[in-house]
Amino acid sequence: MKFDPIAAATEPAQKPKPGPLPPAERVGFAIAGLGRLAGEEVIPAFGECRRSRIAALVSGSPEKAAAVGKSLGLGTSALYDYESFDRIADDPSVQVVYVITPNALHKDLVIRAARAKKHVLCEKPMATSSADAREMIEACDRAGVKLMIAYRSQYQKHHRRLLGDMRSGRFGTIKMIEAVNVQAQGDVRQWRLRKALAGGGSLPDIGLYCLNEARFLTGEEPVEISAQIYSTPGDPRFAEVEESVAFTLRFPSGVLASCSTSYGAHKSQHLLVNGERGWARMDKAFAYRGQALHIGSVENGAEVVETVGVEVTNQFADEIDHMAQCVLEGRVPRTPGQEGLQDHVLMEAIYEAARTGQTVKLGPGGALDATRGPPLGEPG
Amino acid sequence: MKFDPIAAATEPAQKPKPGPLPPAERVGFAIAGLGRLAGEEVIPAFGECRRSRIAALVSGSPEKAAAVGKSLGLGTSALYDYESFDRIADDPSVQVVYVITPNALHKDLVIRAARAKKHVLCEKPMATSSADAREMIEACDRAGVKLMIAYRSQYQKHHRRLLGDMRSGRFGTIKMIEAVNVQAQGDVRQWRLRKALAGGGSLPDIGLYCLNEARFLTGEEPVEISAQIYSTPGDPRFAEVEESVAFTLRFPSGVLASCSTSYGAHKSQHLLVNGERGWARMDKAFAYRGQALHIGSVENGAEVVETVGVEVTNQFADEIDHMAQCVLEGRVPRTPGQEGLQDHVLMEAIYEAARTGQTVKLGPGGALDATRGPPLGEPG
Amino acid sequence: MKFDPIAAATEPAQKPKPGPLPPAERVGFAIAGLGRLAGEEVIPAFGECRRSRIAALVSGSPEKAAAVGKSLGLGTSALYDYESFDRIADDPSVQVVYVITPNALHKDLVIRAARAKKHVLCEKPMATSSADAREMIEACDRAGVKLMIAYRSQYQKHHRRLLGDMRSGRFGTIKMIEAVNVQAQGDVRQWRLRKALAGGGSLPDIGLYCLNEARFLTGEEPVEISAQIYSTPGDPRFAEVEESVAFTLRFPSGVLASCSTSYGAHKSQHLLVNGERGWARMDKAFAYRGQALHIGSVENGAEVVETVGVEVTNQFADEIDHMAQCVLEGRVPRTPGQEGLQDHVLMEAIYEAARTGQTVKLGPGGALDATRGPPLGEPG
Amino acid sequence: MKFDPIAAATEPAQKPKPGPLPPAERVGFAIAGLGRLAGEEVIPAFGECRRSRIAALVSGSPEKAAAVGKSLGLGTSALYDYESFDRIADDPSVQVVYVITPNALHKDLVIRAARAKKHVLCEKPMATSSADAREMIEACDRAGVKLMIAYRSQYQKHHRRLLGDMRSGRFGTIKMIEAVNVQAQGDVRQWRLRKALAGGGSLPDIGLYCLNEARFLTGEEPVEISAQIYSTPGDPRFAEVEESVAFTLRFPSGVLASCSTSYGAHKSQHLLVNGERGWARMDKAFAYRGQALHIGSVENGAEVVETVGVEVTNQFADEIDHMAQCVLEGRVPRTPGQEGLQDHVLMEAIYEAARTGQTVKLGPGGALDATRGPPLGEPG
Repeated sequence: MKFDPIAAATEPAQKPKPGPLPPAERVGFAIAGLGRLAGEEVIPAFGECRRSRIAALVSGSPEKAAAVGKSLGLGTSALYDYESFDRIADDPSVQVVYVITPNALHKDLVIRAARAKKHVLCEKPMATSSADAREMIEACDRAGVKLMIAYRSQYQKHHRRLLGDMRSGRFGTIKMIEAVNVQAQGDVRQWRLRKALAGGGSLPDIGLYCLNEARFLTGEEPVEISAQIYSTPGDPRFAEVEESVAFTLRFPSGVLASCSTSYGAHKSQHLLVNGERGWARMDKAFAYRGQALHIGSVENGAEVVETVGVEVTNQFADEIDHMAQCVLEGRVPRTPGQEGLQDHVLMEAIYEAARTGQTVKLGPGGALDATRGPPLGEPG
Repeated sequence: MKFDPIAAATEPAQKPKPGPLPPAERVGFAIAGLGRLAGEEVIPAFGECRRSRIAALVSGSPEKAAAVGKSLGLGTSALYDYESFDRIADDPSVQVVYVITPNALHKDLVIRAARAKKHVLCEKPMATSSADAREMIEACDRAGVKLMIAYRSQYQKHHRRLLGDMRSGRFGTIKMIEAVNVQAQGDVRQWRLRKALAGGGSLPDIGLYCLNEARFLTGEEPVEISAQIYSTPGDPRFAEVEESVAFTLRFPSGVLASCSTSYGAHKSQHLLVNGERGWARMDKAFAYRGQALHIGSVENGAEVVETVGVEVTNQFADEIDHMAQCVLEGRVPRTPGQEGLQDHVLMEAIYEAARTGQTVKLGPGGALDATRGPPLGEPG
Repeated sequence: MKFDPIAAATEPAQKPKPGPLPPAERVGFAIAGLGRLAGEEVIPAFGECRRSRIAALVSGSPEKAAAVGKSLGLGTSALYDYESFDRIADDPSVQVVYVITPNALHKDLVIRAARAKKHVLCEKPMATSSADAREMIEACDRAGVKLMIAYRSQYQKHHRRLLGDMRSGRFGTIKMIEAVNVQAQGDVRQWRLRKALAGGGSLPDIGLYCLNEARFLTGEEPVEISAQIYSTPGDPRFAEVEESVAFTLRFPSGVLASCSTSYGAHKSQHLLVNGERGWARMDKAFAYRGQALHIGSVENGAEVVETVGVEVTNQFADEIDHMAQCVLEGRVPRTPGQEGLQDHVLMEAIYEAARTGQTVKLGPGGALDATRGPPLGEPG
Repeated sequence: MKFDPIAAATEPAQKPKPGPLPPAERVGFAIAGLGRLAGEEVIPAFGECRRSRIAALVSGSPEKAAAVGKSLGLGTSALYDYESFDRIADDPSVQVVYVITPNALHKDLVIRAARAKKHVLCEKPMATSSADAREMIEACDRAGVKLMIAYRSQYQKHHRRLLGDMRSGRFGTIKMIEAVNVQAQGDVRQWRLRKALAGGGSLPDIGLYCLNEARFLTGEEPVEISAQIYSTPGDPRFAEVEESVAFTLRFPSGVLASCSTSYGAHKSQHLLVNGERGWARMDKAFAYRGQALHIGSVENGAEVVETVGVEVTNQFADEIDHMAQCVLEGRVPRTPGQEGLQDHVLMEAIYEAARTGQTVKLGPGGALDATRGPPLGEPG
């Protein structure tokens, strides 16, 4: 639906948004894993999607699958467990499997989904090692299905706006990036604190946002990494996985990115970018909602701080609809498997740098956005 | 779905939310009027509802109805025009008609919906006069159907939090309220600038938010009203309806509420509350999204300003689901027809005060929240 | 002292500031009245003045005068009481008397200072009636001395910046102004709550800032005034003077200014300006320090809120140095007696409007800034 | 002067401030070096001091000394150049020499001031090497004079409030600190870009604030340091000194502090502290003015961000008056020479870590605040 503008020309522009696809034309997703992220964020986000719908559920708990399926109006034939999962190959209503299980289980599900000729949207971190990540990419390549890693920040509109401003030269040459993502974990029994299931502690879960953000914003790959790790002795939460990591990335253009992550500090997410001509600060940068983007620069000789108006949408819906768009239009996702693999390579370098106390040097990363698919268009 | 808490006790509480009702158990709404508000806000909001679904559309434009209906997966039998509308009586999938037409058309549709034994959710202002508002209430009463006026702010969570803080005594006795709601209208042909269709200019459209807010927050009815109106001579937008209104309400408890509305100023919405012990400021108070609530008070002898954490939800979805809850549970809406009628009585007093240059005195308004249904429970 | 710029051209401009005058060349002020405002704000502000120095003190308390004089290094010949005050005529070190006594005492001191051929800087409100204000102006005119009223906001740099932006057309035509200045008075014995000494309650003390601001920003004089007053029955603080006043001013250009003041609400000061193309909000607008100026407008189709960088200086020092500049350069103060008189005329209209419940109409106010002296130059 | 409270008890407390000392009783300072910092910040700050006065000037430029001296009302006997400087020993009006020259010149002046039996307040960095810093400390010790390093942030009230909140346990155990201090240098001829005069680039000038802050806030000394340095090849500003440094400090308690400094990025200063129970963010942390302190934590289960009310004073005045207090009361400065020396030791480790790519390990730092004098009392 388009409407004639009724507001004066001095008011914010009201761009017509593309209407939603009719339910029957939307891309069908199977949600594999019905944990907290699926239940509280991903499944509700489909209500805000324009191209995507939930077509099936995969869960180890029949009760959970039945309850969620009922609330979504799904028939029992749309409910799978991990044993019956491979039969999804025969379910034409499912085009994409969205894998939202504990990290260590991603690999098996992704490979099985690929075998079933389903495209895959996989939560981050895509695996628990770069070796596994490579296998997953190869499996999807062999099967001719798309693999996208769910780096939601790259689809979130404040981040896209910041990237656009950086690429447009608004800040001049970028010099420094600082990214902080910390939260305080509780229950010691959760899988995130088990090395076998999570692959690591704060780094792969939330520090990954800092790492990926620095790469996303620069479009480059780091050539030097230094790092320090600290875990509180005797804290049972950190018996297997690390508590806090501070790591520094040097990019070929000279940007130094300082990243801080911790499982022991009150939830807080900050992003700073320092360029020649201005700075940007994003509050709640990696949160599910509530981002705010502030830009400092000089106007008529005086410092001005701008709080940028950015359309507020559901970042999960934007990410899911991007995957649907890739399926519908046959394009490569912006954040394909290679994007996830590269983060595993770098996390392994971070652990090495921390362990050895030695800066790790890496080869040049290639062209701008070398690990990414084609750029997203105008937000819409 | 409930999940065990995984965050430390020092992190924000994660309250389990009630799951959505299965589609078939949700309350069915007919959307009457497919203009901008319906297309850009109300219809998308159903994607975030937990108890409500769209069951039918009513529009004077068959093309629009067909296009929207298709995107929603509705069959053609769910599409009505204003001639066929009365046949909705026979449509068991529709329990509520949500009237979103130009103001002057509300009355007819509400009365016809009531005759069809459908509950009604009617956009504000509910009518173009208090006389019409009374007829609408009577028609719904006679038909035994619920009538709710769509005062979305009363369901918006920042407003509910502010109300809760005020009622709890956090600010001490309230002394002053200031509410501003202005925007710059463009196209002179739009119905909002036609007196016959809109009933008035900025006052009934957006000034109404200020008026209703002052009543909502105090729970009282004003006993004295003064007002001034200004319209720019020669501005074609204001040939029939007023541009700007400043009005002041005195409430029995002594609160003085200063309200400002205009169709000629850049979009801006501010709310201030001044109490003995503290103040509150809500930014973007009456906007569709983006509210922020700041509270100033003294802590350990020093002024502190708190930005309050409030769950961000879609206020239209909250309002619509409240109507559904009223239908499902047989309760009276928080904002029934009487709430809308009282605003019409007061807007008529505001116009009179401005015309005569004389403060208008009104009788006492009765008990706290006299025009409202039972209070909303905990947000959920 | 001027310094070569060392920062890059993209950094805020570092304008050389004019150096301070040597102590002996500065304009000498006698401080008449050693109450809280003098002790906590005015006297310390001289440490930040560039053209002004304290040359004498006038107080009814010899102890206070002696203590303050000692801390300032003044000799006993520089200390006056209200009996000996007229001898100041013979004190060549004093060129200006800054009158900071209770309101009702301004008149006598101003007239005596004028007789002593001293220029006068008089705190606001300049008197307790327009009749007294007129007498004071005439006395100064007859004596050939300058009379400036201490409207500090007109010298404060955020207000000057806002005025400049409004006059430059940044906001388009101004439509609405909202100004709030409230605070909670304590001790019932203070002179501010005695009608004979203060002339009124919240209105002449703090509501005056709202009134003066609306006039300052528009440069116009109101032609219609409506008002409501409320005082809590039985509250001993408000036995003689009013607690709360809400008043609305209509200016010839159509601007409606809504002003709210109270002696019963927690300290809070807000200023909003609504123009066609944008809005401005000043936090802590009338406070001694801490102003912040935010401007909302559309940039590339999206709403942007700018927090404006404004040099932070002491507004009392800026005001005092303006008076010194007027003396040194023989110019008329920006806020002469006429500026104060007009506020008294308008406050009398506000009281009348509230008492009668009738909008008070006033004659046209003449040219832009009719009651003011020449504009201030660039801040410096 | 003390005044009876006139505001209600719910308003911010108005603590009586100690009155200023009479000019003749104040501690006399000689300002050595009349560059930009002296001219624009330090000398004006004396107008806000309560215990300090300027008694003499030292400059290599007779014109500058004469002009500044005149504006301050100093006689020509109070003006020194670097040859005549030693005669200050005979000037009883001078008790403290405040050294504000290029870094490499600090050592000579401090030692000569000590020989003249004058106490010394020395700008940071105190020297260009730890060896020089040690000599300066020894010279002052031998002479029996006090040596204070001008770490203004440790005297600034937002920093003091943050420290107090951290020490009181408000944030629980501290986990991470992030500090950013960057600015864009211009003129390539300035002494800050000459290694011989400055000792280094961004690190000793502005990165030092980050380093000192992390030590100040934790009260600990780092045991591991990693670092990376980058200078844009071919940029003439960075022919001798470094452009950007990112360094990470691990403290014995486990705090990881990530610090970022650059001479190539637009001016920006940010400080973040992450504790178990909450976070703090200080905007404009290291600026001359404009600090704002925000604290995030959970209240009743919801995240709340508090903007803390802190008295705004001139941090240079607070720092200078502390030195005066030390002289008057015979106490050790809070930031004595040892505090400056330790930063030189650590900067040398930062350079080494960057050069070798190897984390530098340091011995344990001893007791809390081991390098500092007794804590400051209540701000006043």
